[in-house]
Amino acid sequence: MNISHIEHIGIAVKSIEESRKYYEEVLGLSCYAVEEVKDQKVKTAFFKVGDTKIELLESTSPDGPIGKFIEKKGEGMHHIAFAVPNATEALKNLSKKGVQLVDKVSRDGAEGLKIGFLHPRSTHGVLTELCSK
Amino acid sequence: MNISHIEHIGIAVKSIEESRKYYEEVLGLSCYAVEEVKDQKVKTAFFKVGDTKIELLESTSPDGPIGKFIEKKGEGMHHIAFAVPNATEALKNLSKKGVQLVDKVSRDGAEGLKIGFLHPRSTHGVLTELCSK
Repeated sequence: MNISHIEHIGIAVKSIEESRKYYEEVLGLSCYAVEEVKDQKVKTAFFKVGDTKIELLESTSPDGPIGKFIEKKGEGMHHIAFAVPNATEALKNLSKKGVQLVDKVSRDGAEGLKIGFLHPRSTHGVLTELCSK
Repeated sequence: MNISHIEHIGIAVKSIEESRKYYEEVLGLSCYAVEEVKDQKVKTAFFKVGDTKIELLESTSPDGPIGKFIEKKGEGMHHIAFAVPNATEALKNLSKKGVQLVDKVSRDGAEGLKIGFLHPRSTHGVLTELCSK
């Protein structure tokens, strides 16, 4: 599949305004972008760390995926995203291998990337995203 | 604090033997080391991905931290580890800032690193590790 690096780690937070203080003042990272992804009902904040990123995810609606995640599990790590050359091709290949997918074809994610999720049932419990430019 | 990169992402699994098939055959990553950390009651398996790593964690005892985590939450992402120049110094500085620590001083982790954990109560729900060589 040619994963080049971890594109980002998605972390569910109740409030970006509150949690970014921890990432900035305690860990010393800097937030370089805040973006809303309307169809996912989330606001995102990005921090570059080496060749990967931390993506904070705040729900903009209680019935969005992050709102439901936090209600069930609280704040915490939500997903891992791998960078691949072509997310659509990668999803197709995984489907042929019998991997259960959340997204059969790639869709538009934050930062202009094409993204698609694999189902945690096929990934030993880790919600896994593939991304390509 | 001078975090240079994400040193690794720790993922709790029931069985390294079972889950490494997914990481190797589906994601195409390769496992370069398997190591037991006796005082943590875990067996670990490492996969390099860009400048970071995935660390699979299998409990060697039901009463170890990973055994308890899996019993409560199932398999999934367990912690994020940041590389810093000096984990002991970083823990001291965070303690002064009022961050709750699991480890007040660094201890020996896998791969010969000095490591220490911050408490999820101080990190918006993310079990966070600092590592240095």
